[in-house]
Amino acid sequence: MQNSGDLSGTLGLLRDGSPHTRAELAQITGQARSTIGARVEQLLESGLVSPAGDAVSTGGRPPATFAFNPGARIVAAVDLGATHARITITDLASTVITEHLETIAIGDGPELVLARAAAMAGELIERSGRTMSELVGVGVGLPGPIDFSTGRPMNPPIMPGWDGADVVGQLSPLLGGAPVLVDNDVNLMALGEHKSDFPAVDHLLFVKVATGIGAGLISDGAIRRGAQGAAGDLGHIAVPGGQDVVCRCGNVGCLEALASGRAIAAKLTEAGLLATSVADVIALVRTGDVRASSAVREAGRDLGKVLATCVSMLNPSVIVIGGRMAEAGEHLLAGIREVVYGRSLPLATQHLSIVTSRTKGRAGVVGASTMVIDHVLSRDGLEALL
Amino acid sequence: MQNSGDLSGTLGLLRDGSPHTRAELAQITGQARSTIGARVEQLLESGLVSPAGDAVSTGGRPPATFAFNPGARIVAAVDLGATHARITITDLASTVITEHLETIAIGDGPELVLARAAAMAGELIERSGRTMSELVGVGVGLPGPIDFSTGRPMNPPIMPGWDGADVVGQLSPLLGGAPVLVDNDVNLMALGEHKSDFPAVDHLLFVKVATGIGAGLISDGAIRRGAQGAAGDLGHIAVPGGQDVVCRCGNVGCLEALASGRAIAAKLTEAGLLATSVADVIALVRTGDVRASSAVREAGRDLGKVLATCVSMLNPSVIVIGGRMAEAGEHLLAGIREVVYGRSLPLATQHLSIVTSRTKGRAGVVGASTMVIDHVLSRDGLEALL
Repeated sequence: MQNSGDLSGTLGLLRDGSPHTRAELAQITGQARSTIGARVEQLLESGLVSPAGDAVSTGGRPPATFAFNPGARIVAAVDLGATHARITITDLASTVITEHLETIAIGDGPELVLARAAAMAGELIERSGRTMSELVGVGVGLPGPIDFSTGRPMNPPIMPGWDGADVVGQLSPLLGGAPVLVDNDVNLMALGEHKSDFPAVDHLLFVKVATGIGAGLISDGAIRRGAQGAAGDLGHIAVPGGQDVVCRCGNVGCLEALASGRAIAAKLTEAGLLATSVADVIALVRTGDVRASSAVREAGRDLGKVLATCVSMLNPSVIVIGGRMAEAGEHLLAGIREVVYGRSLPLATQHLSIVTSRTKGRAGVVGASTMVIDHVLSRDGLEALL
Repeated sequence: MQNSGDLSGTLGLLRDGSPHTRAELAQITGQARSTIGARVEQLLESGLVSPAGDAVSTGGRPPATFAFNPGARIVAAVDLGATHARITITDLASTVITEHLETIAIGDGPELVLARAAAMAGELIERSGRTMSELVGVGVGLPGPIDFSTGRPMNPPIMPGWDGADVVGQLSPLLGGAPVLVDNDVNLMALGEHKSDFPAVDHLLFVKVATGIGAGLISDGAIRRGAQGAAGDLGHIAVPGGQDVVCRCGNVGCLEALASGRAIAAKLTEAGLLATSVADVIALVRTGDVRASSAVREAGRDLGKVLATCVSMLNPSVIVIGGRMAEAGEHLLAGIREVVYGRSLPLATQHLSIVTSRTKGRAGVVGASTMVIDHVLSRDGLEALL
């Protein structure tokens, strides 16, 4: 009788993307051929592993190879923002099979918003010719602080009606009882960036610059959420040498009050331009408006002042700038780089890259899917799939 | 034949401080009594585990119990500062058996300083009636950035002659070929505080305030060193709203230029007081000098401005203030608390404690010892002890 811990280990080896023979698996693990044989058999039965043809013979009958089969099951990934929902069905390698994007109002509350998300996920599953029985789990990203152990939002400032909501309890029954995992949207974006573009980077800081500002920290290869799940809350850090603008949180000189999309739009409006949203700011930058690009660069410098502190504190090797404002292109990045490289110590910056996200808004859903897959294929989660 | 991984796991259970019977160990691990019996036998032979009397009988012969025996081997812990060396022999529970403190000049270079440390460690081992053959490893803390994988200092600003020095290669032969692990002193102080006073806390920030300022980060229960081992470099972070004092690093408004012991001493000297060192500052505070205590409190506020940023970023549940300046007592802490609780968001501060170190200068050696023990009793390290 195999326990799921051993199976999870064997599956972990097969998830490297290459086919392996039983002999190779036995050699890597140092375990008996018969033990490995039984595990491979069980994984074949579950469909999680498939035959991958014969290896080259070294004389005699060529040995069979096996590989992880990411198409064996599906995951639903739900990325909810203040005004948008992105719902995606992925395979077990976080590859997007089908997705849907729509406008929502998060303030409609959990019941309405989650019911809509579940309905869309169900429709996407059907549309892609799959069934609810293939769904191994649901990953949800929400725009506020989350108690990761329970999946409940904690005093989320921009999510009226969601404080303490039982997201898991409401969503799971609507999706065939699949396990539901919930995290802060920016943590999941960090996880998605890591999975998509920087799988080999152990220390990564992802910064979302949109209407608000937040960050997700990856340190030694894993998301660090802090004691209450509030780590990465960059928006209300005081900018060193920043202007004394009053923030909506009541404090003065917060990063969000100076460098968020909302703050830039307000500054441009004051200057007589028509800019009420992040989209307007980006449109102005794209038309070549110098006041807009200069305001974006100045916001980049303010971001840089706070990120220089993060670099000294965390010593990441990559900072990824994402969120809608990252679409303003080089202007934001130039401001950030100017200050970070000038302000941080050489040891921490000599191997530091600062880049914009290339995930085209998909980092959140890829991260949500990755979170679910890492859980369901783990020692604790695998039993339910066999 | 047992492999050391299995043995390390069994030993890990016994390290909880309580005696266990073979039956308990078999039950906890889910493994066969015979397997556990063989492992206990091997650990008894090594001396790492000792008989701990009989358990209460439930009828029939009472079963024997076993416990981890921290006295079975010894560890040398060496904490080197700019001007001091603390050399300690501990048991395998990081309990100090004997220690020696002396004044050194780190600028004398690695050869001289390490030879002196090794000689003192040898003398302490002898003086405590132990032998070099009982030494399982040496932990060294150095006051600069360290490449943890090689144990070599990297461009350490206050350690002339130490850049890239082969600390392991120089020290190990002088101490019977024992394995040597090297880390930054502040990381080890964080580890020592964690081990001594906050073993159950997963998110802890240790801040050393002395001539300079640095921090060690514990996140999800482990030290996070960052990509180049430079994480926690608080000293040259720009203080939000701080004064434009020029720092020795060439930048302006660095935390060290405003709030280090050196900066406070300089400020008091300017005000006509006799203060050339951290010791002078503390002496003045203790005599009740209002200018000194007010300068310390102001330094606390500047520290608080940077720590508020760290709280938003990392969401720790404990901040420990250590280093010589922590001896200035409540004045420093009051300044820190005033700003951190006022500036950080409620979610991150409602369960946050800010305390001064109670380890009486021993955090560094306890941390160095803990680092060595965690390594030698791990899966990879245990084989050498059997």
